[in-house]
Amino acid sequence: MATEKAKHLKRISILGSTGSIGKNTLKVISRYPDRFRVVGIAAGSNIQVLESQILTYRPEVVAVFDEPAAARLRKKNLPVEILTGEKGLIEVATLKQADMIVSAIVGSAGLMPTFAAVKAGKDVALATKEALVMAGEMIMAEALKRGVKIIPVDSEHSAVFQCINGRVREEIQKIILTASGGPFLRKKLSELKKAAPEDALRHPNWFMGKKITIDSATLMNKGLEVIEAHHLFGMPVHKIDVVLHPQSIIHSMVEFIDGSVMAQMSVPDMKGPICYALSYPQRFKKVLPSLNMSKVRGLTFEKPDKKRYPCLGLAYEALKAGGTMPSVLNAANEVAVEAFLNKKIFFTEIYNIVALTMQKHKVSKCVNIDDALKASEWAKEKAKNLISKN
Amino acid sequence: MATEKAKHLKRISILGSTGSIGKNTLKVISRYPDRFRVVGIAAGSNIQVLESQILTYRPEVVAVFDEPAAARLRKKNLPVEILTGEKGLIEVATLKQADMIVSAIVGSAGLMPTFAAVKAGKDVALATKEALVMAGEMIMAEALKRGVKIIPVDSEHSAVFQCINGRVREEIQKIILTASGGPFLRKKLSELKKAAPEDALRHPNWFMGKKITIDSATLMNKGLEVIEAHHLFGMPVHKIDVVLHPQSIIHSMVEFIDGSVMAQMSVPDMKGPICYALSYPQRFKKVLPSLNMSKVRGLTFEKPDKKRYPCLGLAYEALKAGGTMPSVLNAANEVAVEAFLNKKIFFTEIYNIVALTMQKHKVSKCVNIDDALKASEWAKEKAKNLISKN
Repeated sequence: MATEKAKHLKRISILGSTGSIGKNTLKVISRYPDRFRVVGIAAGSNIQVLESQILTYRPEVVAVFDEPAAARLRKKNLPVEILTGEKGLIEVATLKQADMIVSAIVGSAGLMPTFAAVKAGKDVALATKEALVMAGEMIMAEALKRGVKIIPVDSEHSAVFQCINGRVREEIQKIILTASGGPFLRKKLSELKKAAPEDALRHPNWFMGKKITIDSATLMNKGLEVIEAHHLFGMPVHKIDVVLHPQSIIHSMVEFIDGSVMAQMSVPDMKGPICYALSYPQRFKKVLPSLNMSKVRGLTFEKPDKKRYPCLGLAYEALKAGGTMPSVLNAANEVAVEAFLNKKIFFTEIYNIVALTMQKHKVSKCVNIDDALKASEWAKEKAKNLISKN
Repeated sequence: MATEKAKHLKRISILGSTGSIGKNTLKVISRYPDRFRVVGIAAGSNIQVLESQILTYRPEVVAVFDEPAAARLRKKNLPVEILTGEKGLIEVATLKQADMIVSAIVGSAGLMPTFAAVKAGKDVALATKEALVMAGEMIMAEALKRGVKIIPVDSEHSAVFQCINGRVREEIQKIILTASGGPFLRKKLSELKKAAPEDALRHPNWFMGKKITIDSATLMNKGLEVIEAHHLFGMPVHKIDVVLHPQSIIHSMVEFIDGSVMAQMSVPDMKGPICYALSYPQRFKKVLPSLNMSKVRGLTFEKPDKKRYPCLGLAYEALKAGGTMPSVLNAANEVAVEAFLNKKIFFTEIYNIVALTMQKHKVSKCVNIDDALKASEWAKEKAKNLISKN
């Protein structure tokens, strides 16, 4: 009996445990204590939350990226080893006793630990979209080589993954990612420029971290997801579409070659896709409340307006250019979103900064992770310069 | 090369080739001549259509149920043997050279040939819902015993089949069949009684045969589909729901135990589910035109109104009662719909006739096909009596 239980127990390390996905992952794990155990957690610098997570989940290894924060946490004399720096993140990402790594560090900082997890042969529940955006070819090639499963945690990619459900790629005609359109779907175009961070952070359907919420308002989030979908599902760029679906009930769709479309729906709650990534290939009971269809308001769909959401076009351009360009898109966007949140640039200038940075970039091949990281560093510098000259 | 081709060629017999499903099946077969060949066709009495089908598709065996019609067709000296009667239908249903039988005879006449096909070990693409409604347990048990695949052709069951896509029954929380609501969805309740057959035959989304179109107006069609789904997917009655979805874009849904819902969509055209049943487990290219999501009008859902659609409740009652009752429901409905089409009863009396027939019936176990057929005969007699006394 004990052995039977142990066989079903999945030991999990979480990279980014104090963020929105990390916290939801821990909630899911709490609900199924006989199926999941937390063996490692890693965070950037939020040691207050981390401390309570350590006491609740008793991981074997903990990492804090920020060294001063790590030092402060160590002083608490918690019953666990505290690692630090990128080396610490990578140690949590490659823990011998972990069966699966939840990769949920926001931004480009998530790339190296994610790659390390794959190289160590760990299955990855992937939320850090930057990893595939920056270094998709390399990560997917490494995963293939090691027989590693990369299971999406994003609600959209989880939906696509569920719609495909093992069917062969040759049968897929098109991936259709849905986007809510964010808080500015119906805002007057002339008012977009001066939209405040507080307004952009008011997402109608999802409660998420700040960076991704701003990316939802610009639709850059969907653009990054297009690039991610390209790598995850091996689909060429012209077979990935985006459709606005303001109700966020259909999380994405797959059209097959015969004209049949599969759609995945649920109440909008990240615990759904998180749990599916952890429990795959099984489904667990009562992860989310039932979607009462007769109470669902009408589901509508519309084409994204290019004027309202020019960032989406940039992402398609970056994917078509390939090589280092998606990494540049992503890095410039990170810098621009931060500048917007700090009220250094207007909302509409996020696009300008990313577009200009891409224009200045001479695209080159990405042969290894370092190429992607260098392009990212270059783009961050460039974007910062553009902002300071603004 | 020739051998390779022959390996991929599926030889098909069509029961009910002159009906709506039969004709659409032949259209599908015409489009993929290197994948399908018609080896047998059978029809009731429409020898005019049958003659042209014989000349176009060159089947090896043909059956005409109606003996005088068969005799007339024989006089044409077509280059094929013409069989007749139920024996003829059964011969086409069990043809040695057939790999798959398309069962598309409307009404209870389709039961015996379908059962014969399963007993002969033939895979069945099933459109004749009466077969499972009348004798679901026996047909499914026989299919299991013989290793026969029964693949649904109804758009709703095809959708459910595609949503399940091999996942285990234990993961299914609920089957949600969608119904357009038919032509009377918004008609004043007080005007329903005197609705003419011409009005009831005006289905908003699907062009189908007369019987099924009337059944769509009463929602009895959905009731029969609930019973069919119970048998096809092994789901208990309380796990099968019906939701009105007037746009007929989502053809049905499956809710899984984790709260995730899969929905199958396409333009409403029976060639989609027909081709999937024939090509399964593969999908063929360009069976239907792409569903342009951003041009799809809003998708809406509502609970079926029990006052408007009382027949749906009768079907649930019949399924709960079990044994011979579903057979009685189906037979009484057949008689009532015919009487309505011949203007012998009002539209709302279809319900009365079926309900009264069910009330008069003493339900008994269905141990063999004969029990179901006897109950059906009894119910037809009873319903006819009720109508003549009307």
